[in-house]
Amino acid sequence: MTNVTSTEYVQNLLDKASGLDQAQGDPRLKAILRDVLQATCELVEKHNITEGEFWSAVSFMGNAAPEFGLIVPGIGIEHFFDLVLDARDKEVGADGGTPRTIEGPLYVEGAPLSDNEAVMSNQEENGERLYIRGRVLNLDGNPLSGAIVDVWHANLSGFYSHFDPTNSQEPFNNRRKIKVGADGSYLVKTVMPKGYAVPPNGSTEQLLDKLGRHGNRPAHVHFFADVDGYRHLTTQINIADDPFVMDDFAYGTREGLVPDIKRENGEATIEFDLVLVAKEKSAIADRSSRPRLTV
Amino acid sequence: MTNVTSTEYVQNLLDKASGLDQAQGDPRLKAILRDVLQATCELVEKHNITEGEFWSAVSFMGNAAPEFGLIVPGIGIEHFFDLVLDARDKEVGADGGTPRTIEGPLYVEGAPLSDNEAVMSNQEENGERLYIRGRVLNLDGNPLSGAIVDVWHANLSGFYSHFDPTNSQEPFNNRRKIKVGADGSYLVKTVMPKGYAVPPNGSTEQLLDKLGRHGNRPAHVHFFADVDGYRHLTTQINIADDPFVMDDFAYGTREGLVPDIKRENGEATIEFDLVLVAKEKSAIADRSSRPRLTV
Repeated sequence: MTNVTSTEYVQNLLDKASGLDQAQGDPRLKAILRDVLQATCELVEKHNITEGEFWSAVSFMGNAAPEFGLIVPGIGIEHFFDLVLDARDKEVGADGGTPRTIEGPLYVEGAPLSDNEAVMSNQEENGERLYIRGRVLNLDGNPLSGAIVDVWHANLSGFYSHFDPTNSQEPFNNRRKIKVGADGSYLVKTVMPKGYAVPPNGSTEQLLDKLGRHGNRPAHVHFFADVDGYRHLTTQINIADDPFVMDDFAYGTREGLVPDIKRENGEATIEFDLVLVAKEKSAIADRSSRPRLTV
Repeated sequence: MTNVTSTEYVQNLLDKASGLDQAQGDPRLKAILRDVLQATCELVEKHNITEGEFWSAVSFMGNAAPEFGLIVPGIGIEHFFDLVLDARDKEVGADGGTPRTIEGPLYVEGAPLSDNEAVMSNQEENGERLYIRGRVLNLDGNPLSGAIVDVWHANLSGFYSHFDPTNSQEPFNNRRKIKVGADGSYLVKTVMPKGYAVPPNGSTEQLLDKLGRHGNRPAHVHFFADVDGYRHLTTQINIADDPFVMDDFAYGTREGLVPDIKRENGEATIEFDLVLVAKEKSAIADRSSRPRLTV
C-alpha cells in the first residue's frame, strides 16, 4: 500500500500546518506539533484508522475534556513523567530522597496553615481515627526546620473538597498546610480515607471499560513538601490494607510509599518521613507549573 | 541521557495502561492506544517536555474541546484523510471522479429536499446573486438520475445556520438537498457566500497565533452527492476571487474545485459538475461515520 505520510506533499503539508514556514510564532511549539502530526499520520496509516473512527475519537475527547485530569494518569502518562524525573535525577546523583509520585488533578491552592500539626477536618466523620506523623529531613537525616508539609485527601465517600458532587464539604476540608519546627516533625490528625473509583458512567470509565480495565484508586494521602534550598517533593502514601493498594488504576503506588499501619485502642498511626534532596543537586528543583485550582 | 521510554518497566507500564494484559475490552482500541502512548512518551523525551508544559497542553485542549472540529482541519489532519482515501482509490483504479475535499464540522442532517433546483434561503440577503448549476454524472459522462445533491454554505457574515452566534438565521437557512432528474442537472439559487475566519480569541486562533499562522477560509460551498451504486462524494467549491482561495487555513482548496465565475447583469454563475465513481470500484464507498448534528 502507498505510504501517504512520507510523500513530499504530506511532509510539506505538515510543515505548513505546524507553521514551520512562518517567521512568527513559538518555535518550540511548532517543532513539537510537527512531530505530533507526523506520529498521528503514521498511526492513521499503520492502523488504517478511518475518518469515522478518528472523528469519533475526537468527539469522545471533546466530551471527556472535564475528565482529562483523570484520563492522563489512567493511561500511565502522569506516572511516566515521574519516571523521567527519576532518571534525570539519577544522572546528576540527586536520587535517594522520598520517592515522588503523581499529584493527581485535585490539589487546590490556599489551604489553612498551622504550626507543627493540623486537624484535617472540622466536620464530623465517623471513620477510624488516623494519626500520620513524621519528620522532614535531608539526605543526612537532619531536620529541615521551617519546611511546609501540604496534605490533602478524600473523605469517607471518596470525594475531595471543591470537587465534591454532593457539595457536603466545607472549603478546604481535608486540606491543610503544616509548618514544621526545629525538630522537623509534623502531625496530621484525621480519619482514615477510603479508596474511590472514577466517576460512574463518565468518560474515564468508558475508556477503561473498552481497555478491559478497572478505575479504582486505593485509599491514599497526598503530600507536597517544600523548604528553601531543597527540591520540591510531590508524593503520596497509600493505605497498606486497601484491596487496590498494588493495583492503582493511576499507577501512583510506589515502593517506599506504602507505610505500615499501627493500630491501638481503635486508632491507627502511620509514620512517614519526608526526605528532601538539596536543590543544587537536583535536575528538577521546583514544583511543576501545572495549572491548579485557586479559590 | 537515559532513555526511559524503552525501559522494560515503561514498556510494561504502557502495555498495562492499554489493557493489553486484560482479556476483556476492544483489541483494536488497545493496539491503537498502545502506539499513541509510545509516541507520546517518545515525544516527551525527545523534546524534554516538562510536566508543566504537558499539563498546560492538556488544559489548553480541555478548553479547546468545543473547537476541535476547527482545530483538526487547521492542523491539516482532515485534509490528510482525503489524501489517504485518494491513494487507496488510486490503488484500486477508482480515481477520476470529482476530487473529494474536507467536510468541515458544520453539516446538519435533515435539510429540506426539492426536485431539480433549490433556493438556498428564504431570508432576504443583499449580496450578489449566485447560480450554481451542473450535472451529476458517472465517469462516462452519463447523467445519474435520482442523485441527491446536498448543499450548504455560510451567510454573508460567514456564519452557518444552527451554529450562528447571532441567532439570526432560521433553521436550515443555506442548507438544501436537491434530487436531480433524468438529465442529472441541478440548480442552486443563492447569494455569493463570504469567507470567514476562526472565532476571534478562541482556542483555534490562539493555537494558530502561536504557529504564526492565519485562520482564514476562502468563501466556499459544501456538497455531498449520493446515488445508488455510486460512491458517496464529499466536496466543496472555492470562490475563485476570494483573497484566501489558495491559502485556506483548513487546506480544503484543491485543483478542480475552483470553478470559473461568469458575471452578467449583476449576477454570478458557476458551473460545477459532480462526477461520481461506481461503488464497486471504490476502496471507500460510504460517507464517513463521523458524528454529525441532527436536529
